[in-house]
Amino acid sequence: WRSRKRIEILQYIVVKWTSVFLVGLLTGLVAFGINLAVENVAGLKFVYTVNLMNTNRFVLAFVLYSGVNMILVMLAAMLCVYVGPLAAGSGIPEVKAYLNGVDTANVFSLNTLIVKIVGSVGSVAGGLIVGKEGPLVHVGACIASLIGQGGSVRYGMTWKWLRYLKNDRDRRDLVTCGAAAGVAAAFRAPVGGVLFALEEVTSWWRGPLLWRAFFTTAVVAVIIRTGIVWCKHGHCGLSGEGGLIIFDISGNPDNYGLQELLPVVILGIMGGVLGSLFNQINSKIIIWSNGWLKKKGKCAKIAQAVIVAFITSVCSFGLPWLATCQPCPTTLEIPGETKCPTYGRTGNFKSFHCPANMYNDLAGLFFNTNEDTVRNLFSKGTNGEFQFSSLLIYLVTAYSLALLTYGIAVPSGLFVPAILCGAAYGRIMGMVMASIYGTGPMDEGIYALLGAASFLGGSMRMTVSLCIILLELTNNLSLLPFIMLVLLISKTVGDGFNDGLYHLHVRIKDIPFLEAHPLPFMRHLTAHDAITGPLVWFSVIERVGTILEVLHSTKHNAFPVIDDNFDGQDEHPVFCGLVLRSHLLVLLKKKQFAERRKRGGGFQQYGSFSSAEFAKPGSGKGLKITDIELDIAEEEMFLDLHPVTNTSPYTVVETMSLAKTYTLFRQLGLRHLCVMPKSSEGQPIVGILTRHDFMPNYLLNLYPSLRESNHRKAHAFPSFSSPSQP
Amino acid sequence: WRSRKRIEILQYIVVKWTSVFLVGLLTGLVAFGINLAVENVAGLKFVYTVNLMNTNRFVLAFVLYSGVNMILVMLAAMLCVYVGPLAAGSGIPEVKAYLNGVDTANVFSLNTLIVKIVGSVGSVAGGLIVGKEGPLVHVGACIASLIGQGGSVRYGMTWKWLRYLKNDRDRRDLVTCGAAAGVAAAFRAPVGGVLFALEEVTSWWRGPLLWRAFFTTAVVAVIIRTGIVWCKHGHCGLSGEGGLIIFDISGNPDNYGLQELLPVVILGIMGGVLGSLFNQINSKIIIWSNGWLKKKGKCAKIAQAVIVAFITSVCSFGLPWLATCQPCPTTLEIPGETKCPTYGRTGNFKSFHCPANMYNDLAGLFFNTNEDTVRNLFSKGTNGEFQFSSLLIYLVTAYSLALLTYGIAVPSGLFVPAILCGAAYGRIMGMVMASIYGTGPMDEGIYALLGAASFLGGSMRMTVSLCIILLELTNNLSLLPFIMLVLLISKTVGDGFNDGLYHLHVRIKDIPFLEAHPLPFMRHLTAHDAITGPLVWFSVIERVGTILEVLHSTKHNAFPVIDDNFDGQDEHPVFCGLVLRSHLLVLLKKKQFAERRKRGGGFQQYGSFSSAEFAKPGSGKGLKITDIELDIAEEEMFLDLHPVTNTSPYTVVETMSLAKTYTLFRQLGLRHLCVMPKSSEGQPIVGILTRHDFMPNYLLNLYPSLRESNHRKAHAFPSFSSPSQP
Repeated sequence: WRSRKRIEILQYIVVKWTSVFLVGLLTGLVAFGINLAVENVAGLKFVYTVNLMNTNRFVLAFVLYSGVNMILVMLAAMLCVYVGPLAAGSGIPEVKAYLNGVDTANVFSLNTLIVKIVGSVGSVAGGLIVGKEGPLVHVGACIASLIGQGGSVRYGMTWKWLRYLKNDRDRRDLVTCGAAAGVAAAFRAPVGGVLFALEEVTSWWRGPLLWRAFFTTAVVAVIIRTGIVWCKHGHCGLSGEGGLIIFDISGNPDNYGLQELLPVVILGIMGGVLGSLFNQINSKIIIWSNGWLKKKGKCAKIAQAVIVAFITSVCSFGLPWLATCQPCPTTLEIPGETKCPTYGRTGNFKSFHCPANMYNDLAGLFFNTNEDTVRNLFSKGTNGEFQFSSLLIYLVTAYSLALLTYGIAVPSGLFVPAILCGAAYGRIMGMVMASIYGTGPMDEGIYALLGAASFLGGSMRMTVSLCIILLELTNNLSLLPFIMLVLLISKTVGDGFNDGLYHLHVRIKDIPFLEAHPLPFMRHLTAHDAITGPLVWFSVIERVGTILEVLHSTKHNAFPVIDDNFDGQDEHPVFCGLVLRSHLLVLLKKKQFAERRKRGGGFQQYGSFSSAEFAKPGSGKGLKITDIELDIAEEEMFLDLHPVTNTSPYTVVETMSLAKTYTLFRQLGLRHLCVMPKSSEGQPIVGILTRHDFMPNYLLNLYPSLRESNHRKAHAFPSFSSPSQP
Repeated sequence: WRSRKRIEILQYIVVKWTSVFLVGLLTGLVAFGINLAVENVAGLKFVYTVNLMNTNRFVLAFVLYSGVNMILVMLAAMLCVYVGPLAAGSGIPEVKAYLNGVDTANVFSLNTLIVKIVGSVGSVAGGLIVGKEGPLVHVGACIASLIGQGGSVRYGMTWKWLRYLKNDRDRRDLVTCGAAAGVAAAFRAPVGGVLFALEEVTSWWRGPLLWRAFFTTAVVAVIIRTGIVWCKHGHCGLSGEGGLIIFDISGNPDNYGLQELLPVVILGIMGGVLGSLFNQINSKIIIWSNGWLKKKGKCAKIAQAVIVAFITSVCSFGLPWLATCQPCPTTLEIPGETKCPTYGRTGNFKSFHCPANMYNDLAGLFFNTNEDTVRNLFSKGTNGEFQFSSLLIYLVTAYSLALLTYGIAVPSGLFVPAILCGAAYGRIMGMVMASIYGTGPMDEGIYALLGAASFLGGSMRMTVSLCIILLELTNNLSLLPFIMLVLLISKTVGDGFNDGLYHLHVRIKDIPFLEAHPLPFMRHLTAHDAITGPLVWFSVIERVGTILEVLHSTKHNAFPVIDDNFDGQDEHPVFCGLVLRSHLLVLLKKKQFAERRKRGGGFQQYGSFSSAEFAKPGSGKGLKITDIELDIAEEEMFLDLHPVTNTSPYTVVETMSLAKTYTLFRQLGLRHLCVMPKSSEGQPIVGILTRHDFMPNYLLNLYPSLRESNHRKAHAFPSFSSPSQP
């Protein structure tokens, strides 16, 4: 079914671009909607709390504040636990896994999408130290996947033309575009979104995809831009700037000197150390709490989320009391005003419990939405407005809370927590520098930005995409060398300790992820060594009952077909090819069997099949073996497998080095790889390798003696010790 | 030699990053040097010519002007013809071919580099309608390649540590970074450079490369930025803005309406039509003139270049006389000045032969360096300063001259000619729009920019990288939707007619380039069908004389090694693996042969070899068969090939579909692919496939009946009719 007509190709192109456009449009709108909802819900919460505080009813204010937070988080957690369990967390590991070829059911379902959207509004507006950036990537991917399969199959919304996209490749391309759109919407960074998808999310990259992904993010950028203009006309309630991290410092051609080099290097090292420490502790907490929660059930998960929300509320309401009130800087005061200038509702000067003309700098960090805190930390020309102690308290608290929070059953992104922690110590570094050099050329806000870059680099280990995202946020190319240096150092330092966070989470979730390169110990094995278990095969003309039995008793998705000379024509049995479980199920369902076992009768038998019946349905759908019911007479009939056999599967000889076999499997994106015998005696096929046979843990359990050599080399330099061909 | 020690891995990392840094540094410096040289040489030429014209000695002025042009171009052509023939043209097809795996000697040699640098100064300063952008890509790649092999081997400058980079993969990575650096230097677009390398130049892309390429372009950006600051202090002679195309229109948040949509679509279509027409005519001219020049020899090439230079001089000096003089706009006049304001030396108002207070708009286009012309065409707020007739004359002339010029024996880039033509008709479109709508919101300069985008898209068929380059040039994100739309349309229209220009040139140069996807007709063939010619193989223990003879008589680079049971142990001959010509030559050179033909004696024999002796030398270097001299006694001795045999080559079964074989070969970047027999009788290997066996022309000559079906489908939709796995 690959030889399409010209009109069909045209339809295909139209459908492809339309769907990509829709992905961009919807992701942009959803992102904008989330921003609006978060800003308005959180805004109302703060307005009422502050009103109570202004009348000195502090206890009531705290009850209101923490109550709203706990209710919002509970709502998010309940949705996550009962409706869409896969919507918890950031979703980026799931998207990565899908694009690596791991097709888990319901990862991109409509349920997941809705829970992700509503849940992330709840968790962000509920004051948790989480962001909506990571979830937006998942949201974009969900939207893309749903459009790709023509709406939700479960709810019966499909569209005929979209049959063209019902194959793995087009669905994967679309999901990649969706992930790019998510990042673009989160940071208003179209180029950064594409590079994020390219660097972090995808496992295979095709040329035409670049252009399509960029088109998607451009659509998103236009939507977001239009939305912001619309908000400026006052249509958006309490949402001032649309809830985006905006830090435009363009038109500031600062010239930074060499004395900035040392603090920048130190920031990079700090980012690497703190980031990899974050990864390590967070992984440990998640592994520990996962084991604990499994025993306790669903309510425990919700309770955990609510407790974290309560702790966060206590911290953000309680800790600002530790800070001393400070007088507002006179240079900024507006004549006749008793309150500090606050640049609208946001700004560094929260009065909190302080008297008029004083402000509480710690409240400016804690008692705010996360986006506003980021803006305050990044703000330029505000040197000295934060006290050293306040920043330190905030750093320690935010770091601890982020550790606790990432992993509970709510949609939670990690970009914002990382930016918060990084910006806090970055600003501390800026204050130290200012106390040494006086007012140097570099602002504390810039140090905060570089600190954020270092923590992101140290934790997530992305490079180009982070750099471009930050450049697009700041719109100032003169910072490029410093941002690159910081990212380079923090990534290198972090890589010395452990893997990137998403990587660790892929491993915690036990996803059979195929890395780009084979591990070094695989060079000591051959393809044959990875095969375990007996080979299950079919004859070219097989008894229906046998097929049914095999499909019931095994979980394999592909079976070799062997011409075993049942009629004694040839001498040796010959390997014909592979047949897929899904195709066999379609054949069994149709029940068009032959009564006798003879060759050549097969082709008429398939006259009534159209190629569309064999097309791949959406994930998790399609026929199951339990759907098939046959009577005894039918089981004794025969099925000619020739027409559905893939006669050109990729093969390797059993003596092939496993490392090279891995490269072949990974580069070509295979699901099944046939291993052929070296000599011609015996069976014509030795076995079939699948993704699971290449998992390092599986192989190392088979060959424990290799564990030592693997550990010694692979761990320290995973990317350098295994150079393979291009 | 893959199991390195830890200190060696550290050395490797240091060397890798240092070399990447050096590539960026040197490319940036060279690009800056070229800019300075061009601006100063061309500037002096114009100063003296204008001085002569001001005293009404027009004939003498023309003689001087055309003489200087012809001498400069002749110099460039002579260098190209006698010193570095591979430096002619833009060099992008050569870089593409190298990164596709075609390793031609001397493409990146020091000679080529020097000729490219000096030659492109000559051709650009000599007034030809060529740019220095394309050559800069080649320059970057040359620098990278030379650094990768540790300086020029021929001139004896090598460095020991660089042995780490002496393998195909690292050299290729470095050349990719070099190409990215070239674009970054040409357009001051670091992100655009990386994406250009990713989209247009490379055939394989590895994750870590993204970061390294970006690091390189960031270094380039810093260098160029520093250079411009340095020039502003007046160190650069006549070079005002460093010869860069600068068109910063940031901070102009224009809001464009829907009435701009139609002209933008028309521009896209025009770009597609004119661009693909350009490709078609240019290819025809080059094929025709190549055939003609082959007969005439080297002098004809130089003569051709000089003639083109003369024609260009006549056009650029003669045609401005056709334009009527126009009064300078009074709003811009500086009180007390009789000449038009010219914003320094550049600007739209060239007086040429006009009296005071008048200017010649056509001279502002023709009688300028190409960069200044681009700046004039792009200039904003200059509506109505060009006449319709002038722009039309310029468009026709520039288009024709560009067609003539690209292909002569001088370094010549195509970006600038494409921008010139595109900007000309874009500005015409802007004038048409202005005459319909009055002064609409969109400036003529913006139309010129969109026109340039459309011609670039229609001719080169790049998308993302062009878009980013233009965005980085203009620094204005609000143009993004229009630029994308124009590129999308012009690429689509152009693809309807023919392939992109670089693609066509790859084909004209007869480079065995492997496309990303197999052509559809390959599905009708098997791997066995592509094999021609008898198989040449070696026994595991082979007579030295036989090896020598085979190496002399064939040109193969790899030979299968077969255990043919010379001592009668086994029954069937067994395929052992592949041995490389280069390794055989090293063995022959060392002359450590065994006297008798027996197994097992081989391993001692290699005690005296170090792995470095087998390492790949720079391109075109290394041992040749003519270097080997053996006496008759030695020829009768034996060589054990076991230790140098690659026992895990990639294989396919002979019945494998050729399309899938192609995918395997291309995705894994193989040089040799072994085809194994289906049945176990006969030879244990059927043949070896190399890059040449996958060339469509070769296959279609073997199977002419497939030509028809290939033509019908593949031509119209080359990228859609062959979907293959990821």
